[in-house]
Amino acid sequence: MAAKNVVYAQSGGPSPVINASLQGVVETCRAFPSAFGTIYAGMHGIEGILEERLLNLSVQSQEEISLLRNSPAAGAIGTCRYKLKDKQTEDFRRIIEVFKAHDVGYFFYNGGNDSMDTAHKVSELARREGLDLVCVGVPKTIDNDVGDSEFKLIDHTPGYGSVARYWAYIVQVAEEENRGACSSDPVLLLQAMGRKIGFVPAAARLADPQREMPLQIYLAESGLSLQDLADNVNDMLKRRKRCIVVISEGFDVGEFGVRRDSFGHIEYSASETTVAQVVTNYLNKVGLAARGSARFNVPGTDQRDTAIYASTVDLEEAYLVGRKAVLIALKDGTGYMATILRKPGEIYSVEYDKVPLEQVANSERKFPTSWIAPDRTDVTDDFIHYARPLIGEDWPSVPLVGGLQRFARLRPVFAEKKCPPYVPQAYRK
Amino acid sequence: MAAKNVVYAQSGGPSPVINASLQGVVETCRAFPSAFGTIYAGMHGIEGILEERLLNLSVQSQEEISLLRNSPAAGAIGTCRYKLKDKQTEDFRRIIEVFKAHDVGYFFYNGGNDSMDTAHKVSELARREGLDLVCVGVPKTIDNDVGDSEFKLIDHTPGYGSVARYWAYIVQVAEEENRGACSSDPVLLLQAMGRKIGFVPAAARLADPQREMPLQIYLAESGLSLQDLADNVNDMLKRRKRCIVVISEGFDVGEFGVRRDSFGHIEYSASETTVAQVVTNYLNKVGLAARGSARFNVPGTDQRDTAIYASTVDLEEAYLVGRKAVLIALKDGTGYMATILRKPGEIYSVEYDKVPLEQVANSERKFPTSWIAPDRTDVTDDFIHYARPLIGEDWPSVPLVGGLQRFARLRPVFAEKKCPPYVPQAYRK
Repeated sequence: MAAKNVVYAQSGGPSPVINASLQGVVETCRAFPSAFGTIYAGMHGIEGILEERLLNLSVQSQEEISLLRNSPAAGAIGTCRYKLKDKQTEDFRRIIEVFKAHDVGYFFYNGGNDSMDTAHKVSELARREGLDLVCVGVPKTIDNDVGDSEFKLIDHTPGYGSVARYWAYIVQVAEEENRGACSSDPVLLLQAMGRKIGFVPAAARLADPQREMPLQIYLAESGLSLQDLADNVNDMLKRRKRCIVVISEGFDVGEFGVRRDSFGHIEYSASETTVAQVVTNYLNKVGLAARGSARFNVPGTDQRDTAIYASTVDLEEAYLVGRKAVLIALKDGTGYMATILRKPGEIYSVEYDKVPLEQVANSERKFPTSWIAPDRTDVTDDFIHYARPLIGEDWPSVPLVGGLQRFARLRPVFAEKKCPPYVPQAYRK
Repeated sequence: MAAKNVVYAQSGGPSPVINASLQGVVETCRAFPSAFGTIYAGMHGIEGILEERLLNLSVQSQEEISLLRNSPAAGAIGTCRYKLKDKQTEDFRRIIEVFKAHDVGYFFYNGGNDSMDTAHKVSELARREGLDLVCVGVPKTIDNDVGDSEFKLIDHTPGYGSVARYWAYIVQVAEEENRGACSSDPVLLLQAMGRKIGFVPAAARLADPQREMPLQIYLAESGLSLQDLADNVNDMLKRRKRCIVVISEGFDVGEFGVRRDSFGHIEYSASETTVAQVVTNYLNKVGLAARGSARFNVPGTDQRDTAIYASTVDLEEAYLVGRKAVLIALKDGTGYMATILRKPGEIYSVEYDKVPLEQVANSERKFPTSWIAPDRTDVTDDFIHYARPLIGEDWPSVPLVGGLQRFARLRPVFAEKKCPPYVPQAYRK
């Protein structure tokens, strides 16, 4: 069988290790030249496939491919939030058209549950259209919300260990700030990503596994109200004179999340304020049980983009799960996601395996209820036991040149366009 | 002359290198036991002196003193925002009382212009009261707003190089995020500290000295309006499809900074929203010249607290300026601030010297007008030339144990109280 070309694309929010998976895929494909022809990246994910913007990864130097390891975020090949809904049949057919035109036999799609659903549907459609296409998923989300709640489909997603390490570190320095500044700013709030699921804010507990800090963690799943939160914070201020609050961006602030316009009408727009701002304003108005005021940080995209906080464990796993995806494509064929499963035993170790894309697409992970502490402002030791190995032991090696990071910089060499121009369905007027 | 005891205290916001100065003072005092007796820290700055909470630094192990180097923020001995106004004569007298009671002959005060003013006044009052007290200032601010605008009193303050390095780095990863995500989130705003002075946001330019990124920098001094900013951003979106905005927390958003209550009345409270939020909402309402929306990060205290972003140059200088303060106390006596002056020449080097506290107290630094680019959304190469050496070349060495930072942890050994209890004037009801 002649070698077939490869398309790799990614979807959704980036992570500090997203390009380690890309490196794993590229290097492994290169190792099997009889199976894999030219390797392309869909620029900005599925959008780049639809618009036939295919970056040639085969022509890139090994130096740049190696530098992908520590290049965070999606700067190298881009990502998108373009959702392929079932009814967008023209989009699906366009993907097949582009793949046929470029003799693509392998499609690797990096993302979460939605992306696995897309990969599955592309795989099915290709089969129906008589295209010999192997679709394999590469898992990724900082939210750790891929797969099932029992961790059987996947133990954790690449990206999560690094954002967990970010939180383990920045809560440590927030503690140093708060200890030092408590006479004027006794409450420091930090807003964490993960709108619906609590793995990211939960990782704050890794900063303080012995529970020595005056730290409260509010997951979106906490079920607590803004008033509960204020009461808890004031209790902590009475006991410790200060408080660090890590709060999910998805914490339900109820009616306080709304803004009113100049006529006093409610403006329903979630993005017009942040949970951190609402909570801070509320605390400062309610009256703190200590001198001073509450303040907040919103790290935002920084938590998913900083190479220096990447976990060495996560970097290695992201690479190997990319490698595994290629091996699955070679050996097992279409319809799988490469996965990371934790081996039993006290010492952390994982194995790489495959799970059907369809199973992942139809699963929904929730933060285990049993990992939320009874007072609902903390997580349990079982969570610590689960998450601690993922952040690793040491700083990663991030190359600097002239004081600045040396990122992978891919040459802008694109596949010649062979299909008619196309506007993605969702972007049509 | 018998050895006299030492009090060290700090004021205002912390920095990643604040404890390197403390280390410099402690280690240098220890080297001259015939001059310096017990070394105390006023816990939480001047508040700790007023309340006679004096931490004994002499009993601390050399290991912990060494660990101060890479321990960021004010967790070790605390800081405060307590302002000693001229009319608070009781507070000034209390300081003298506490110093007399503990046989204090040396007072080292770490802070900015206000703190140098306080140190100067304490020095003067001691002289009038017949107390032989040597007061020496140790400069510190991340804002780089100590001294004069001509950089004659001090070239830059310890702390600034590290926050500049923070911005040089996080703008780099923001670029990777923005490049990758431009199809959905074409505008990424980052809010920088420095309410009145632009050195912190200006440091964003160090991420991109060749001006390749679609980066705009808005200092508080820019003189631009929110509408100007929106026009500029839309121009950039038309040219580059995306835009990174670094904006000072002190950028004047005019009437848009206010919130209205449920009756439509303006609520005047600056802290109820952030500049980043106001600008983001405005951009999203005005309509961006690209698909997608604007989003923002507010790093907040993280920019002044993270050890891993500390500049190796800044760490060394912070240590040596602390050391210099002790040498001034030994040789030159009271009324000076230790300072850092840049030597002429193409290769960056500094020398440590002294300047009168009174001169520093009466000076006010402004961001040089000539360093703001003509379009007012950038800084000039002269700024880059000034700031680039301060961020150093490499990552600092931050010790981890079990994946977490090993901070200096000082034993809570305090001086026995010898004065009657005292409530600081500003805290009386």
